[in-house]
Amino acid sequence: MRAARRTPRLAGLALTLLATAAVAQPPAKTLTPAEVLDASPKADWRPLVPERTLYLDLPAGRVIIELSPAFAPNHVGNLRVMTRERYFDGLAVIRVQDNFVVQWGDPEEGERAKPLGSAKPRLAPEFVRPDLKGVAWTRLPDRDVYADEVGFADGFPAARDPKTGRAWLAHCYGSVAVARDNDEASGSASQLYAAIGPARQLDRNLTVVGRVMQGMELLSALPRGTGRLGFYEDAKGRTPILKLRFASELPAAERTPLEALRTDSKTFETITELKRNRRDAFYKAPAGHIDLCAVTLPVRPIAP
Amino acid sequence: MRAARRTPRLAGLALTLLATAAVAQPPAKTLTPAEVLDASPKADWRPLVPERTLYLDLPAGRVIIELSPAFAPNHVGNLRVMTRERYFDGLAVIRVQDNFVVQWGDPEEGERAKPLGSAKPRLAPEFVRPDLKGVAWTRLPDRDVYADEVGFADGFPAARDPKTGRAWLAHCYGSVAVARDNDEASGSASQLYAAIGPARQLDRNLTVVGRVMQGMELLSALPRGTGRLGFYEDAKGRTPILKLRFASELPAAERTPLEALRTDSKTFETITELKRNRRDAFYKAPAGHIDLCAVTLPVRPIAP
Repeated sequence: MRAARRTPRLAGLALTLLATAAVAQPPAKTLTPAEVLDASPKADWRPLVPERTLYLDLPAGRVIIELSPAFAPNHVGNLRVMTRERYFDGLAVIRVQDNFVVQWGDPEEGERAKPLGSAKPRLAPEFVRPDLKGVAWTRLPDRDVYADEVGFADGFPAARDPKTGRAWLAHCYGSVAVARDNDEASGSASQLYAAIGPARQLDRNLTVVGRVMQGMELLSALPRGTGRLGFYEDAKGRTPILKLRFASELPAAERTPLEALRTDSKTFETITELKRNRRDAFYKAPAGHIDLCAVTLPVRPIAP
Repeated sequence: MRAARRTPRLAGLALTLLATAAVAQPPAKTLTPAEVLDASPKADWRPLVPERTLYLDLPAGRVIIELSPAFAPNHVGNLRVMTRERYFDGLAVIRVQDNFVVQWGDPEEGERAKPLGSAKPRLAPEFVRPDLKGVAWTRLPDRDVYADEVGFADGFPAARDPKTGRAWLAHCYGSVAVARDNDEASGSASQLYAAIGPARQLDRNLTVVGRVMQGMELLSALPRGTGRLGFYEDAKGRTPILKLRFASELPAAERTPLEALRTDSKTFETITELKRNRRDAFYKAPAGHIDLCAVTLPVRPIAP
């Protein structure tokens, strides 16, 4: 009986179960985030654009990544070339460092490395944009440890320097970025990583190309590499990449159509506020704030 | 060749490889955190106290948890009773919700639930301490999204309200806390969870009893539950708890002696500053700040 009550109550730990506020009866009905989403107008959602959506197909399933050519046009372009030429097919997840990053690309080095084909082997960094012209900017109300202004830029978690106007994509859980050498112009997008732990110190130091919209658990639950920095010491530990494709390369039947909540919508604002200040019966002390990386973007299949 | 260089350079992504600063030659030698740790006096380290150290033994290995009776005396006391009476042995990890929590305890409910024995079935909450009297407090220099003051309290990530003096343990990666029902006095420590993603909104709402010092990847890499809130739908998905023991219950040969860096040491201050502002050749824009939950506490085996 106790356990019967406790287990669902731990429901209270999740975002989806905000209940009515615990006020004097009769309580005013407070919508839960799930109810807010269910009641949201279709116009508050945007379909992922196939030309900007990558499918990373692993044996366990599909990881779906939305790319940001607005922040990383050249790296996304290079990724388009490599994907078209099937560079990634047959490569692998080569590194999982607990609470930090999952990285994939070519496990081989030197002469045994897979040729990059027509893709550029080096690209100038795209760490920061000079401004947000042409980018929809939804600012979050809270202060941030790493930047004076944070929010969502075209739906991607991002930060902005109000003094200079410069803006950059942030390293939150699921953010996908380009590995490089010490030389800041040494990346090509042939090795990518996704953040699985605190990594904001990488902001403005690496080119973030997008973020995972579905299937993140296929990366985050992989066995941790036991080598230095989480690289797999034994090739058998690696997870093979079956194929990497832009959604636009596939026939409709092989696509996974998703839509994301628009971060410039009233629905997003309402849900963010519900998460900043939990008013359900479980929470006793609403936080009053929310960290940029604690805001998760609602994503759902598009009803056929 | 490119890959040969890129792979180690991603070394730059990790804390352990801070190299000399990229200044005009000859560069002043900047110690890496690893070098700082190697050079640290023995007095900057403290052994984990066996009476406050829990071993959660899973089939894949041992998760080592340091407990905080200073913040949660009654819950730690109850845990001591339950552990002595072998309450947890044979129970299981029952929930893994991606980017949120891993939870363990009794998968059965109602009449089939395992009796709690002499342990109390309900405890008053220990969410917040009225002050930090008797607790060593190392304040971090940075602002925080969730609290005006953050730092380490007896080595545990914590927050403090400078107006009231009240203090509480924070939900960072690896923090271990007590599941409960909506009633704030309904927890007993018979179900515990560890945070594997952003969970600071739970601060001051749940009783944090400690945090994982070693073996966190044995929890964080578990398959995500596919049921509601990450509960396993199929009992076969659960990970059995072989046994839960205080280190002090075991003979010396079965213990895993660890020591942690003292957070009130000069070494800790130096390392934290090296992480706040990365000066190695990889980083181009030092963050200038560090989030409480991005500070990881160095832990190492005690040389026999």
